[in-house]
Amino acid sequence: MTTLKAALEVTARDLNDELARLLPVSEGPEGRLQEAMRYATLDGGKRLRPFFVLQTARLFNVAEQAALRTAAAIELVHCYSLVHDDLPAMDDDDLRRGRPTCHKAFDEATAILAGDALLTKAFEVLAGPATHSDPQVRSDLVVELAQASGDHGMVGGQMFDLMAESLEMDVAAVTRLQGLKTGQLIRFSCEAGAILGKAPWQQRQALRAYAHDVGLAFQITDDILDVEGDPGQVGKGLRKDAEAGKATFVSLLGLDRARHQAEMLSDQAINHLACFDAKADLLREAARFVVERSL
Amino acid sequence: MTTLKAALEVTARDLNDELARLLPVSEGPEGRLQEAMRYATLDGGKRLRPFFVLQTARLFNVAEQAALRTAAAIELVHCYSLVHDDLPAMDDDDLRRGRPTCHKAFDEATAILAGDALLTKAFEVLAGPATHSDPQVRSDLVVELAQASGDHGMVGGQMFDLMAESLEMDVAAVTRLQGLKTGQLIRFSCEAGAILGKAPWQQRQALRAYAHDVGLAFQITDDILDVEGDPGQVGKGLRKDAEAGKATFVSLLGLDRARHQAEMLSDQAINHLACFDAKADLLREAARFVVERSL
Repeated sequence: MTTLKAALEVTARDLNDELARLLPVSEGPEGRLQEAMRYATLDGGKRLRPFFVLQTARLFNVAEQAALRTAAAIELVHCYSLVHDDLPAMDDDDLRRGRPTCHKAFDEATAILAGDALLTKAFEVLAGPATHSDPQVRSDLVVELAQASGDHGMVGGQMFDLMAESLEMDVAAVTRLQGLKTGQLIRFSCEAGAILGKAPWQQRQALRAYAHDVGLAFQITDDILDVEGDPGQVGKGLRKDAEAGKATFVSLLGLDRARHQAEMLSDQAINHLACFDAKADLLREAARFVVERSL
Repeated sequence: MTTLKAALEVTARDLNDELARLLPVSEGPEGRLQEAMRYATLDGGKRLRPFFVLQTARLFNVAEQAALRTAAAIELVHCYSLVHDDLPAMDDDDLRRGRPTCHKAFDEATAILAGDALLTKAFEVLAGPATHSDPQVRSDLVVELAQASGDHGMVGGQMFDLMAESLEMDVAAVTRLQGLKTGQLIRFSCEAGAILGKAPWQQRQALRAYAHDVGLAFQITDDILDVEGDPGQVGKGLRKDAEAGKATFVSLLGLDRARHQAEMLSDQAINHLACFDAKADLLREAARFVVERSL
């Protein structure tokens, strides 16, 4: 087992424990809502964003608990966005991570509310005193997460995505779309460690640049896997983009150039980490993994 | 024109200006999302929650800008909840404030995303440095708003409401439901001024008690208006609860006892303000208005 694989497994386990603690189930009728929140959040996904938070936090000797809560908050936002994305009025997906999507396992109304409550919980967790002793840091985290995930970030990207079919999409447009839809939250995941650790501006900028390239490489690889992946392994519907006639990096660049582009971005991401010592080795490995993964 | 009516009009105007500033429209495809956010937020509603924030803030000489931003954040949450509540999978309403609901004026996907982005924006606004010079206050506001509007507050209440038809509902259950669904956010609106002004605990508790009683009186009156109101004036579908066979304060208590209960709560709310001088007179008037309004 590689070091990275082991680290990802530890992250997934620790994060799951933290999320389970943050998402208790009440006795009352809200219990159903909270079950849906847990269903959409626990035991799933690669937990890449939390991994980025924990690894960048380690560079600045941030307390484990602070990093874990911040990672959990970001994952709550990521999971809420998947729940809402899967809804019939949006992408209308029945499967997610090999299981029925939240609105299939519960119902549409419950899924809408579960998404809303997960998003709300993310901010409660970030702003809570257990996240950091300095309230200025907590406020900064809240502002940054909101900017990364709101109308100028992730949600704006989802709107862009819905409208993309009726727009002339070239590589620049698809890059901008993905920068909003997935890039911003990955960027915040990598900057969060620097915010928690009150890192010097230059190091924060390096992580920002790393995140930009890794995020884009991740998305190009997603497009490649949508065409080439094994549906059994990926655990979600494939070839949806191609069938919908959506512009993707692969449809615009072709498979070979897309693959080349992803590898170049991965190299570039690693170069941005030059100012860090061996402590950043797992982040370097992650930049490789993002383009070499098969799911 | 009564003093209260004038104050409500000033609040509505100032708040609208603040919201318009907080919700700019971009050039890109996100512009459509931002138009939907403005549509769901500007020029509408009684703005009761913002009024409570501004009036309680005044008791502690809080800066106008701090109070206005906090009021705007709470109204963003209120408006997002209406957008999601109106969706076909939820209450399936076509009209809100006399206009097509957000998913009718735009489409369902845009309405879901606009709600998400409004909720996100609320936390960005609260945590932003312009809201208060002390980051501890901003973090407290974020935690309190999240708790009031998440699974242990408003969203939990919406889940409860969706399940209420299949439950045995008595007055205690309807009171708990409304306490979650609308009470918590009204409670936070009244406490926000105390948080901003770092008020003594006893005064904060007094406002909390006031908010509890006013919130419940407001909801009982809503139930009365649902039966007795003039659809043209109220600007939304009426008699929906009665037709759906939903348990309400009116169906459980009858009109007379419901009216009596609302008036008693209104008196009680005013009593809670005994520790405040004439500065709280508009809050006293508001407690009357809540039960005497016709829309």
